[in-house]
Amino acid sequence: MIRTARDDSRPAIDSFREECGIFGVFGTENASAIAALGLHALQHRGQEAAGIVSFDGNQFFAHRAQGRVGDSFGSGKVIGMLPGNAAIGHNRYSTSGTKTQLRDIQPIFAEIAQGGVAIAHNGNLTNARTLKRDLVQRGCIFQSTMDTEVIVHLIATASGPTFLDRLIEALHQVEGAYSLIALSETGVIGARDPNGVRPLVLGELHGQAVLASETCAFDIIGAKFKRSVAPGEIVHIGRDGVRSLPGALGRAPRTFCIFEYIYFARPDSVVEGKNVYAVRQQIGRLLARDAPADADIVVPVPDSGVPAGLGYADQAGLPFELGIIRNHYVGRTFIEPTDEIRHLGVRLKHNVNADAIDGKRIVLVDDSIVRGTTSTKIVEMLRTNGAREVHMRIASPPTTHPCYYGVDTPERKELIAAQMDENAIAAKIGADSLRFVRLESLFEAVHGGQPNGKRMPYCAACFTGDYPIELIDDMHVELPLLLEET
Amino acid sequence: MIRTARDDSRPAIDSFREECGIFGVFGTENASAIAALGLHALQHRGQEAAGIVSFDGNQFFAHRAQGRVGDSFGSGKVIGMLPGNAAIGHNRYSTSGTKTQLRDIQPIFAEIAQGGVAIAHNGNLTNARTLKRDLVQRGCIFQSTMDTEVIVHLIATASGPTFLDRLIEALHQVEGAYSLIALSETGVIGARDPNGVRPLVLGELHGQAVLASETCAFDIIGAKFKRSVAPGEIVHIGRDGVRSLPGALGRAPRTFCIFEYIYFARPDSVVEGKNVYAVRQQIGRLLARDAPADADIVVPVPDSGVPAGLGYADQAGLPFELGIIRNHYVGRTFIEPTDEIRHLGVRLKHNVNADAIDGKRIVLVDDSIVRGTTSTKIVEMLRTNGAREVHMRIASPPTTHPCYYGVDTPERKELIAAQMDENAIAAKIGADSLRFVRLESLFEAVHGGQPNGKRMPYCAACFTGDYPIELIDDMHVELPLLLEET
Amino acid sequence: MIRTARDDSRPAIDSFREECGIFGVFGTENASAIAALGLHALQHRGQEAAGIVSFDGNQFFAHRAQGRVGDSFGSGKVIGMLPGNAAIGHNRYSTSGTKTQLRDIQPIFAEIAQGGVAIAHNGNLTNARTLKRDLVQRGCIFQSTMDTEVIVHLIATASGPTFLDRLIEALHQVEGAYSLIALSETGVIGARDPNGVRPLVLGELHGQAVLASETCAFDIIGAKFKRSVAPGEIVHIGRDGVRSLPGALGRAPRTFCIFEYIYFARPDSVVEGKNVYAVRQQIGRLLARDAPADADIVVPVPDSGVPAGLGYADQAGLPFELGIIRNHYVGRTFIEPTDEIRHLGVRLKHNVNADAIDGKRIVLVDDSIVRGTTSTKIVEMLRTNGAREVHMRIASPPTTHPCYYGVDTPERKELIAAQMDENAIAAKIGADSLRFVRLESLFEAVHGGQPNGKRMPYCAACFTGDYPIELIDDMHVELPLLLEET
Amino acid sequence: MIRTARDDSRPAIDSFREECGIFGVFGTENASAIAALGLHALQHRGQEAAGIVSFDGNQFFAHRAQGRVGDSFGSGKVIGMLPGNAAIGHNRYSTSGTKTQLRDIQPIFAEIAQGGVAIAHNGNLTNARTLKRDLVQRGCIFQSTMDTEVIVHLIATASGPTFLDRLIEALHQVEGAYSLIALSETGVIGARDPNGVRPLVLGELHGQAVLASETCAFDIIGAKFKRSVAPGEIVHIGRDGVRSLPGALGRAPRTFCIFEYIYFARPDSVVEGKNVYAVRQQIGRLLARDAPADADIVVPVPDSGVPAGLGYADQAGLPFELGIIRNHYVGRTFIEPTDEIRHLGVRLKHNVNADAIDGKRIVLVDDSIVRGTTSTKIVEMLRTNGAREVHMRIASPPTTHPCYYGVDTPERKELIAAQMDENAIAAKIGADSLRFVRLESLFEAVHGGQPNGKRMPYCAACFTGDYPIELIDDMHVELPLLLEET
Repeated sequence: MIRTARDDSRPAIDSFREECGIFGVFGTENASAIAALGLHALQHRGQEAAGIVSFDGNQFFAHRAQGRVGDSFGSGKVIGMLPGNAAIGHNRYSTSGTKTQLRDIQPIFAEIAQGGVAIAHNGNLTNARTLKRDLVQRGCIFQSTMDTEVIVHLIATASGPTFLDRLIEALHQVEGAYSLIALSETGVIGARDPNGVRPLVLGELHGQAVLASETCAFDIIGAKFKRSVAPGEIVHIGRDGVRSLPGALGRAPRTFCIFEYIYFARPDSVVEGKNVYAVRQQIGRLLARDAPADADIVVPVPDSGVPAGLGYADQAGLPFELGIIRNHYVGRTFIEPTDEIRHLGVRLKHNVNADAIDGKRIVLVDDSIVRGTTSTKIVEMLRTNGAREVHMRIASPPTTHPCYYGVDTPERKELIAAQMDENAIAAKIGADSLRFVRLESLFEAVHGGQPNGKRMPYCAACFTGDYPIELIDDMHVELPLLLEET
Repeated sequence: MIRTARDDSRPAIDSFREECGIFGVFGTENASAIAALGLHALQHRGQEAAGIVSFDGNQFFAHRAQGRVGDSFGSGKVIGMLPGNAAIGHNRYSTSGTKTQLRDIQPIFAEIAQGGVAIAHNGNLTNARTLKRDLVQRGCIFQSTMDTEVIVHLIATASGPTFLDRLIEALHQVEGAYSLIALSETGVIGARDPNGVRPLVLGELHGQAVLASETCAFDIIGAKFKRSVAPGEIVHIGRDGVRSLPGALGRAPRTFCIFEYIYFARPDSVVEGKNVYAVRQQIGRLLARDAPADADIVVPVPDSGVPAGLGYADQAGLPFELGIIRNHYVGRTFIEPTDEIRHLGVRLKHNVNADAIDGKRIVLVDDSIVRGTTSTKIVEMLRTNGAREVHMRIASPPTTHPCYYGVDTPERKELIAAQMDENAIAAKIGADSLRFVRLESLFEAVHGGQPNGKRMPYCAACFTGDYPIELIDDMHVELPLLLEET
Repeated sequence: MIRTARDDSRPAIDSFREECGIFGVFGTENASAIAALGLHALQHRGQEAAGIVSFDGNQFFAHRAQGRVGDSFGSGKVIGMLPGNAAIGHNRYSTSGTKTQLRDIQPIFAEIAQGGVAIAHNGNLTNARTLKRDLVQRGCIFQSTMDTEVIVHLIATASGPTFLDRLIEALHQVEGAYSLIALSETGVIGARDPNGVRPLVLGELHGQAVLASETCAFDIIGAKFKRSVAPGEIVHIGRDGVRSLPGALGRAPRTFCIFEYIYFARPDSVVEGKNVYAVRQQIGRLLARDAPADADIVVPVPDSGVPAGLGYADQAGLPFELGIIRNHYVGRTFIEPTDEIRHLGVRLKHNVNADAIDGKRIVLVDDSIVRGTTSTKIVEMLRTNGAREVHMRIASPPTTHPCYYGVDTPERKELIAAQMDENAIAAKIGADSLRFVRLESLFEAVHGGQPNGKRMPYCAACFTGDYPIELIDDMHVELPLLLEET
Repeated sequence: MIRTARDDSRPAIDSFREECGIFGVFGTENASAIAALGLHALQHRGQEAAGIVSFDGNQFFAHRAQGRVGDSFGSGKVIGMLPGNAAIGHNRYSTSGTKTQLRDIQPIFAEIAQGGVAIAHNGNLTNARTLKRDLVQRGCIFQSTMDTEVIVHLIATASGPTFLDRLIEALHQVEGAYSLIALSETGVIGARDPNGVRPLVLGELHGQAVLASETCAFDIIGAKFKRSVAPGEIVHIGRDGVRSLPGALGRAPRTFCIFEYIYFARPDSVVEGKNVYAVRQQIGRLLARDAPADADIVVPVPDSGVPAGLGYADQAGLPFELGIIRNHYVGRTFIEPTDEIRHLGVRLKHNVNADAIDGKRIVLVDDSIVRGTTSTKIVEMLRTNGAREVHMRIASPPTTHPCYYGVDTPERKELIAAQMDENAIAAKIGADSLRFVRLESLFEAVHGGQPNGKRMPYCAACFTGDYPIELIDDMHVELPLLLEET
């Protein structure tokens, strides 16, 4: 009964977009307030909707809403409706063109035989539809379109005596990328898939454990970063403290998403032991070494191109200039522009700082190139404002394949680097030259280099097409059976 | 894992409240617009929330919102988001003190093995918790607090080949009162429990079948009333027309809710073959015969006491006067009055028409008396404004027992007639006298009298305590495991 | 610079609509809460918007909002933002087809030389545009489209030493109908035009004076009705108590709006010394005498036709039956029906109680007939449902002229009674007969009869075209210079 | 009647805040859409509320709303309600602690003898209260708290034959800083005070003139920057094209607000002929020369400290590092934090990029220092995360005096630099050293240096206390006479 169709209303987003940020806390007063702050620090991982579920020892409390964390959870009134000293939360992007439906905002909550359970999930299961088909045949009912609902059904139909047993049993059945945080009546549980594709970190706040997608969610509340949750590990936080079950979900070659370093993670986060900002700067330096340019200044595409731009400028010995200014007030701004306005070629998000680039030969540094539409506009803007030459340098290898592990990406045919080589792309976007950083350089920046013949412990499928986790379902976009406007 | 608790925040509503109105249409253009109008005509059966699910042959579409039908579905924009020529809808009261949560607004929708299914339900299952406990043990997950979700699980775990087979199989497992309308990919189905407690009628609009709680929902769209759906009957409306399965859900003594005639139904509806207004007038006449009063005028408590008041005045040969005026602009009005205001004894809803009652001996006619708090206020208002005597006459027998078949009622100890006799009630509310209509007279008005020794085909449990359908669950108010504010 | 134009978007409302209800209180705790309750009781006089301004001895506080009083002022939070022991309030209809703009919601507030002043006004000035033209030429600026702003300018440019002096000076310059309540730093002032067209009553609450359009606003708060403010009188309520200035605004023949008795006022109000309900019943009796009908039952058009219907039935000795049921949940309901729905001839507001009228010869009683469109629909509904004959009886004389004194009415050519006689109207609306009450009978019901040759102290211009106050401006609808959406 | 009081609810904002951005366009299709885009580009000048008034040759249309431009004007529906080919718009900050009231959102609109007029104003009049007192005495009424309403009254009471004559006459009466854009029935007018304190620029879009506070508003729509409007100049844009009236408002020494270069203007704007980004970089270079530090890296406080930080690093030959990361999702975020959360010392807006600064001696560059509270937090954050030394360098001289020319500033006693010297401030905020750029260096960066004995053509009163325009009114915060919640 699952329909597969092409959703043509999907807007042509010219970037990869992380789909989720997750957070969990146990054993603390104001748990939901802390969760709200953690989600706020993780806002870059999902801006369409947010939700928090708390537990006060007796009842669960939930609030889920479209929009940003601050808008939905910024008032004492809302936080006051989420009592208890355990809470988990979730930020999300919508993966379809339409806005997120309320029934699809996480954490999901359900009553099962073990009591109430809430789950917040970052990632994507590659056998969700296959599992759903089986579950539905066995009499399960689905009320949302979220993979997370599959996990809840697997827990509910598992046979182990405790909730934790059942969660482990359930997760053994799923394939794909998942970092998840669950809230049950006995505690908060963090789990990471055996490949460790998506991030999950463990911290400590006043002696109590906290879980989050990134360390920046600890900084905002003054929590201390302890360590990454290991691939395949379960961390149970309950009244008895933190209990680790290493390898509980199985063992597999580690394949952490390398794109977290390139674009998704916040620069001030420490991801799998490395500072993101430092990695990005280093990529920029290696990019300057790999792809030098005869130029006057280095201009980053803000904000994501800034660290690599600084690294490039440093390595190349060129001045670093803010030649492009970003308008940070763009949010849900101007969602229905009239045709007339669209034709003006309006610069809602970026503007050129003309004085800084006039007459200059520019190295333009961006983190990645997806469809190429944004690059085309920016190059044109630079030229119109007097740039003499524009040499585009990309701080990642060519993105040639879609991600199926929890990132919203265009299909292959829409990825410009899957269709043409560097020179053709340069011509297409109007640059004098275009070069990507080499994959080996990326590995060097992230990992200190790739020993001969050894597999790197990263998923770089979007650059290589080498998918480390089996793609079981048909991976086309699926039209939901129910559309609900709320 | 089900918690039972006393919800002390439940406000002391001084009336019985019907919990739902339902509507369904198949095979018509503008199905959702027609459903919206039908729900509007049924607004008196539930004013807290409304929902419509439509099906366009390919996808389902839903909109569910707090508030009245006109507010949520009155715009072409919302109706335009609900395409298709089949639609079902639901109005609801909240049964707890807090406002209805979005996840508890019907119709419920789920994907099951037979595809999408939406259900709108009026009534209450008396074994819902028992069934839920079993289902949860078998691995089902619950995401709402609605009985309807139990029914969906029973359908999903049934074994019959078609959706209709499974629905019948599911409903054979439930006990209680249910009139429901389901929407599947093949049609709209109406079903009524074997006792026929709650109403359900079949009509015809431009050759297509429509289903509704009451005939007034047909009048608003110009549809023709055909007949009541029979107790235990299933009516399937699909591309092949209307198919009836009499007795498909079993056979039992008919026990239609007699309170529909007294208060719930709209006076212009025809309920189980009788016009509600005419029945109420006749109750009034028999009340005058049973309980005459030496008085000058008959004053009804508006609006529900008006037909019985007219009947009483007619029988007693007394003038009928609108001595109490109701302010119809009271909706969600003044929900948080300050203490100071509360102490003013404010007359938000009713005012006395002083000139009409000054110096008069009054027969005050109301449809029923629940806690007695409203009556106390009204009697005092009448006296303050010059009434010489107030003789209260109630157009129903003493309501001494709560309803467990889909009506929101106070517990027994809060029912004034369960605690004291007519004279004591009169003293308590400050009336010079108080009399109820006799149960036999009620039967006479509704049914033309009760033949000797024969059971009347009505549920009158709220007057007699004789519950015709087994009460399997503990019938106390249950605290939901999840509270969600939206 | 004032533009006059025909606003074609004006919807064809088939009734006269009162434009305002006003309320004022001084010297009481919770003044704004009391004002909110008073406005709620006056909701029938204006449902589009409401506003309250309070004064705490130092600062003024205002809240003005579209929608009903209960929706805007029903929460303790809003009332808490309106502190002080003096407050005035206003309900309004929009006079144009579009919704009321925020800048046009009363009370108006302005700073003038005497400090802050707020004014709430019921009525219509017949020289407002002429005055505005003069004021604008003298350098005044206008920020709304309300007549009330003219009054504020006249006060501000007056020469008297006190606010009260200036108010009187200002009102001497205006022509038309006005009952107004002003709030200054020294008290609350009530004023009524010399003809006394619109109502204004004085009451007492715990020893403090209150002012309102109707006495029902006193009943809701338990205030005691003292007397009507006299035509041309000023009542000043301040720290020194109530001071009356009889005739301060001039003296003129009393011409109270007789339509208040027919339709506008609430039946439980006492208007100019007479109970409205009793007057309407008496009109019904005289209508039965003037225009008997050979019929079986009397059916009122609810709610406004009910008292006259009771009177008619009483006089004619016919049974009174609720043959038409009104859906009170119609508010802003279904404001944008689709064309398809419109063609269904939907009965959003009224439904026929078919059983009660089937096969009957009906006297159909309504308060008035304006365009005739509603009557046409109702007559057709009755016939479709089995009425044998329909004899329409109207509890007012033919309305043949528009009102220019504060009532929103169609133009003359749209008034059916200005275009044709009783028989032609009967034919047009499909009734077997149609008769109006005679003007003399109306006077008799209201006033006990008209002595020979004496002018009755009522404005009946809508029936006679005899306008008692000069119409100075061009009275066509004016297009506002600024349209603002909020 | 004007009350002066200290508003203690005013939050302790630790920055200077520009109060307004303005925009105007004439003679173009989609004028209101273009105005919305212009305002979006000027969002940094005011984020609390926005408004647009358009004119279609016959009627004016307005929409004014709290919140950001994109939220209020981003939909085709709103723009569609603002037809016409002339439009002006305004962004504003609230100057009091409470949110902007609807009646105080610009553009103001009024009907005067010359027809409709709308005005959007950036600046502050120093004789507004004095003028208002006179106007009120002469019979004018005030309905808002905006200076702009004073200007409208002066226009309305002026004597010239045309609107333009009257506008000039009115502006000759005001003292203070004003750049304003007016919309009348004959065109759009830009005006700048004789001192030229606030910016106003003229551009061209498809042959039609546009006006804006900054050139970045031209860039977004692809308009071409022509020139700054001169101090004292009037520019009239009408059907006959652009007409300039140089010196129409009088002549005075030019004293442009030098703080526009330091903080207010967007870095990509060209302000009075100079690129803001280049000026800021140059200030940073001179700051490095004036106040060198023995350090390892330069870290800017984002975003405003970045250009000066780049200049400092360049001059000092030190690495530039993004040691502090700003969360751009902070908007109206977390407006009511609970006490518990407040005590966590939450880092809502800034976080330290620990890896980048650990063990380093840091030059911390910020644009200015007002109260010092933010600096204290940031220095502490740096130290907690491992900074070895923190040398704060401020890219402006000590701000020792409040601004009375349109900038929202704390009073003198709250300005840290008015209370203590550099060393004391360093101690107070916890820095190892603190130095400001010298005023002469600022002049050098902005103007190429100050010739001996010559007055610089800038207002630097916030640094010097030398106010170039007379302060006629008492400049204390005034409590509005009316508070209105909307």
